[in-house]
Amino acid sequence: MSSTFGSLFKVTTFGESHSKGVGAVVDGCPSNLSLCEADIQKQLDRRKPGQSRLTTQRKEADQVTILSGVENNLTLGTPIGMIILNQDQRPEDYNHVSEIPRPSHGDYTYQMKYGIRAASGGGRASARETTGRVAAGAVAEIYLSRAFGVEIVAWVSAVGTITAPDPDVQAVSREGVDESLVRCPDFETSVKMVEAIEEVKFEKDSLGGIITCVCRNVPAGWGEPVFDKAEAKLAQAMLSIPAAKGFEIGSGFTGTRMRGSAHNDRFVQKGDRLGTLTNFSGGIQAGITNGEPVVFNVAFKPTATIGTPQDTADFAGNIVSLAGKGRHDPCVLPRAVPIVEAMAAMVLADLALIQETRK
Amino acid sequence: MSSTFGSLFKVTTFGESHSKGVGAVVDGCPSNLSLCEADIQKQLDRRKPGQSRLTTQRKEADQVTILSGVENNLTLGTPIGMIILNQDQRPEDYNHVSEIPRPSHGDYTYQMKYGIRAASGGGRASARETTGRVAAGAVAEIYLSRAFGVEIVAWVSAVGTITAPDPDVQAVSREGVDESLVRCPDFETSVKMVEAIEEVKFEKDSLGGIITCVCRNVPAGWGEPVFDKAEAKLAQAMLSIPAAKGFEIGSGFTGTRMRGSAHNDRFVQKGDRLGTLTNFSGGIQAGITNGEPVVFNVAFKPTATIGTPQDTADFAGNIVSLAGKGRHDPCVLPRAVPIVEAMAAMVLADLALIQETRK
Amino acid sequence: MSSTFGSLFKVTTFGESHSKGVGAVVDGCPSNLSLCEADIQKQLDRRKPGQSRLTTQRKEADQVTILSGVENNLTLGTPIGMIILNQDQRPEDYNHVSEIPRPSHGDYTYQMKYGIRAASGGGRASARETTGRVAAGAVAEIYLSRAFGVEIVAWVSAVGTITAPDPDVQAVSREGVDESLVRCPDFETSVKMVEAIEEVKFEKDSLGGIITCVCRNVPAGWGEPVFDKAEAKLAQAMLSIPAAKGFEIGSGFTGTRMRGSAHNDRFVQKGDRLGTLTNFSGGIQAGITNGEPVVFNVAFKPTATIGTPQDTADFAGNIVSLAGKGRHDPCVLPRAVPIVEAMAAMVLADLALIQETRK
Amino acid sequence: MSSTFGSLFKVTTFGESHSKGVGAVVDGCPSNLSLCEADIQKQLDRRKPGQSRLTTQRKEADQVTILSGVENNLTLGTPIGMIILNQDQRPEDYNHVSEIPRPSHGDYTYQMKYGIRAASGGGRASARETTGRVAAGAVAEIYLSRAFGVEIVAWVSAVGTITAPDPDVQAVSREGVDESLVRCPDFETSVKMVEAIEEVKFEKDSLGGIITCVCRNVPAGWGEPVFDKAEAKLAQAMLSIPAAKGFEIGSGFTGTRMRGSAHNDRFVQKGDRLGTLTNFSGGIQAGITNGEPVVFNVAFKPTATIGTPQDTADFAGNIVSLAGKGRHDPCVLPRAVPIVEAMAAMVLADLALIQETRK
Repeated sequence: MSSTFGSLFKVTTFGESHSKGVGAVVDGCPSNLSLCEADIQKQLDRRKPGQSRLTTQRKEADQVTILSGVENNLTLGTPIGMIILNQDQRPEDYNHVSEIPRPSHGDYTYQMKYGIRAASGGGRASARETTGRVAAGAVAEIYLSRAFGVEIVAWVSAVGTITAPDPDVQAVSREGVDESLVRCPDFETSVKMVEAIEEVKFEKDSLGGIITCVCRNVPAGWGEPVFDKAEAKLAQAMLSIPAAKGFEIGSGFTGTRMRGSAHNDRFVQKGDRLGTLTNFSGGIQAGITNGEPVVFNVAFKPTATIGTPQDTADFAGNIVSLAGKGRHDPCVLPRAVPIVEAMAAMVLADLALIQETRK
Repeated sequence: MSSTFGSLFKVTTFGESHSKGVGAVVDGCPSNLSLCEADIQKQLDRRKPGQSRLTTQRKEADQVTILSGVENNLTLGTPIGMIILNQDQRPEDYNHVSEIPRPSHGDYTYQMKYGIRAASGGGRASARETTGRVAAGAVAEIYLSRAFGVEIVAWVSAVGTITAPDPDVQAVSREGVDESLVRCPDFETSVKMVEAIEEVKFEKDSLGGIITCVCRNVPAGWGEPVFDKAEAKLAQAMLSIPAAKGFEIGSGFTGTRMRGSAHNDRFVQKGDRLGTLTNFSGGIQAGITNGEPVVFNVAFKPTATIGTPQDTADFAGNIVSLAGKGRHDPCVLPRAVPIVEAMAAMVLADLALIQETRK
Repeated sequence: MSSTFGSLFKVTTFGESHSKGVGAVVDGCPSNLSLCEADIQKQLDRRKPGQSRLTTQRKEADQVTILSGVENNLTLGTPIGMIILNQDQRPEDYNHVSEIPRPSHGDYTYQMKYGIRAASGGGRASARETTGRVAAGAVAEIYLSRAFGVEIVAWVSAVGTITAPDPDVQAVSREGVDESLVRCPDFETSVKMVEAIEEVKFEKDSLGGIITCVCRNVPAGWGEPVFDKAEAKLAQAMLSIPAAKGFEIGSGFTGTRMRGSAHNDRFVQKGDRLGTLTNFSGGIQAGITNGEPVVFNVAFKPTATIGTPQDTADFAGNIVSLAGKGRHDPCVLPRAVPIVEAMAAMVLADLALIQETRK
Repeated sequence: MSSTFGSLFKVTTFGESHSKGVGAVVDGCPSNLSLCEADIQKQLDRRKPGQSRLTTQRKEADQVTILSGVENNLTLGTPIGMIILNQDQRPEDYNHVSEIPRPSHGDYTYQMKYGIRAASGGGRASARETTGRVAAGAVAEIYLSRAFGVEIVAWVSAVGTITAPDPDVQAVSREGVDESLVRCPDFETSVKMVEAIEEVKFEKDSLGGIITCVCRNVPAGWGEPVFDKAEAKLAQAMLSIPAAKGFEIGSGFTGTRMRGSAHNDRFVQKGDRLGTLTNFSGGIQAGITNGEPVVFNVAFKPTATIGTPQDTADFAGNIVSLAGKGRHDPCVLPRAVPIVEAMAAMVLADLALIQETRK
């Protein structure tokens, strides 16, 4: 287990799908920062289950309590302990899977690694684990926003084969994103996405997709070559999210088909700094932010738990038919949007603090 | 700077393109492992410049010397210090860029971050930095190979718009890969790739592409959820390689277009263990290896340094015409193959050691 | 702030003297370990305030709740989140110190470091912070005990100028230690220590002293030279305890007055292993345990908060008279015994896990 | 093995007593710092063997070469690789100990830990390992000196039973310390110490002692509670030095005998800051520096390798007579002075950088 992320802005999370609670400790958050539970709750509400007809119907208020590190709405510089108690536990939903590892889920690998696994739900492999990340990421965002004016906005850019046109990365906002159930800022596309998700839901199947994220107002200079380059830490952070299968910064895989003469981001004066004419680099060059918007994509596989029966082996090797009965999302992407934002914020807050040592 | 990677199998690298030397310290390598300089040299020779007409003509023997940690060809358990002295330094090749940050290179961001940068070559942002990684990765591979029989093979699967058919991941070998200058194991495709690279070289332009890597015989159980999942550490490792722009495990971005019923890797008995019928997971589920081959892709952008003149701004904001004059590869992929293998080995060796604590 | 300790057995603590709660997250604890709240409560009860007439009268039940990581009394291998809610908060006791930094306390340095400090009590600098350590240490001890039979026993060996004779380090037990209020296993000395503490309490003054700790059944081979030698990590762990001022392993400062011929621990066969005739090394040689009992001393200064008025400067530099009014221990040593044990357990559990990678 | 120290100012060392070389990589050193090999050589010369009749006669020039990270005598912000080649290797001196673990040395524990050990000399357990520390510490000192005016001076305050009077901690200098062979700034005491060392040398025995160190001009605010308190990291750093057995900050073990009313460091205005009337705290309160001089003691045991024959067991358990024949110091303290300074500098540089994030 490695449940701690970051070197200076250090986040530790804990909690399983059906434990008493989940939570996070944020150690290293700068002091004298205005912070209250409502700041954190806002993002938790965007991640919580049951928020729309597209998501799992598990009911969780996901109400955060700050246990330490904040006094009179100001951070003390000491570790910020946060807990969210689990409420809607229905272990019986999951009893039938105990001898059958669910395909493409964590049951088999957790059992092989630890010789034990949570009896109910996905345990630590459940997306419920990400609650703590979102709480911690909200703290990171507040630091980034107040200290540097950083804005982080993620959205669903593809669901299955439906792809949205690129929005204006300078203008896209969380409010705009949240106007659609599916968190895609392009209205027409979002309607198609919703239809597609409802269709697979009806068919007891699932869909994957792509989340795109932009981080604006990131100053030049963040990122620690050679192993903790900004894109490397973002890649680790994103691939640590349940169901994530890919990451690309800037032009990514598409850029591999271009020639250097077309791909190079040529410099040009922008106000009082150098900027680039294009942004195929995605705001990061040689591992260090260059002042342009940081833009990246994250690929999410289709939800592994589906209602459609599948032939698969149980732990003893017998082929059995398995149909998922627990509550689950037919498409995780709408709820994964605040998780991507949270992980981006945790990466940037850590790199920001390290770079501050050079002032 | 963050030049240390890994928690138990810990690699620290140092060195710039035109410093006296580059190297690595491997701390935490298990003791009593048979190791000699020739084991390491083999991979260095696959990375070194000047090995074919497709690569930069900088002449470097890249001869490694082991300074410590090994006695009578056995590792002592103590840190293995390795150095490679730089030989073919031609700082004059680079003098003309001093006031002009090369587009999509590290000149601008290093200057913004550190307030100084190496006067010649790319400094630490040069691919020369990866020499130390390859040396360290070779040590990691020897451990993985001797202790677990792990085999790591990477190859060039795309150059620009030319894509190779998938080889048999169980059979593809380094020998087969090295039969073509471009390190693509499919003969016909490799011929086209070589032609494409020679064409852009003639046109003073450059190409990118994709490297695919398979790690065979990886036991189930490696990977440390939730932040150091196997795919997360691989993603960090790969995105830390110069010019890397994307990473995908298993089905990756393509898998986002599939339905769960098709994407799920159903279990089946394979000999004395459970395996999966398909491997869209790429050998990792919920952050932990499952015993199937680990398979992933890494996207590389086209080389930033090109001979074609480009209009770009100097540090003062004046638009100037810049044409790269240093020695460089028109396509970095053939030489990046051993780097991808080295980083994969470093990740797996570290996760393997951590999992050993559970025996 | 650095509230995380350990590399594989990783403990993160949080909480201030007057926050809603204190707690700890233990990440990396081996799975399938039998663990329940009562195991942890036992050590918390030895640390809690109000347990005798010698200690602060603050009333705290210090009841631990395990939030995650344990199911059916077995550890899952996932992070173990533990909280202890604060109950007896009397911020008014501390209001009078707000403008006057208490001498030899953390008020001044926290203010200088963070530009803010907890308005009431010592905040994170209060010994209340150690609650989380004791909870985490109890988990570490259970692992060490079950996996290796390790026994850790600490006791008060000196209070002020009163020094106890050395007990038999092979026989001294927690039960024996707890027979005296002051946790000194020598009856006669303990009576004198109690008298001395009651005397300074009456005189509104305070005393320091020394705690000695033995760790039995530690196998040879634990400790990670050169920077994480066993004695180095123990030293860090002990000096991180509030009021600790010194650490010595084995012969320590006294041994500096001996000659090598007398100080060397000569080897002798002991059963099926080599042991040493003497143990001036304190069970650790060249940073690695040698199979003999690990024995060390920790020096604690007299409690900084005293009822006796003292002339000191306020933050503005004015000389004022200050007398402590909060509840505090006239001598912290009896309650520090389980803290020393907890920190020793955290160090040994981490070194044990690292060494397990070599099996 | 754990050969890396520090989180932001990160030092990795390598090398054994009889390997080809020893060295260090300093990663995270601030850029644009003036640095040349002569800066580092100065401290290496104070540590090197053969510098006086009191030390081992092994001949090593200990000439440092900077391989990377510095250009035109300015640090680039990239890792500074430094090597010192070993010259005077006489493995034959050590052949006779191969089957007999030297008492109180690392032979036995390294063998138990790694299942192998360096055939000649102490390998990584030799004090030769500290060469890399001194080189890295010299870099740290240059940063501390230039950025903050920090001055670090250590001296021998006791040899065996001979104790020096306290010097003026504000005035004691390296030049003054180096006036005596034994590095004790009190002339009369130093004469006695030299006599005592020559006496044990003649008698083929050895002595231990105490080194005291002061760090001046350390600003208030350095240190990271709760686990990386300034005194905790100093304790770890000092106990990681070969032969170190104890550490005390400020009043240390002596202070345990005082009452709080006498021990408390009362505040008083000093220029434009608050200072303390006394400094029993040793410049650190609640884990954070307070602006007063940081003062601490380190206990060193008598050298384990002595010429006097000793009865001890070989690895097979047979009692044999062993007399050390290698070259060694009868008292390590004079040469340990720059090592203590180096480790202090490494700790402070790391804490300084972390605190800089709060500016």
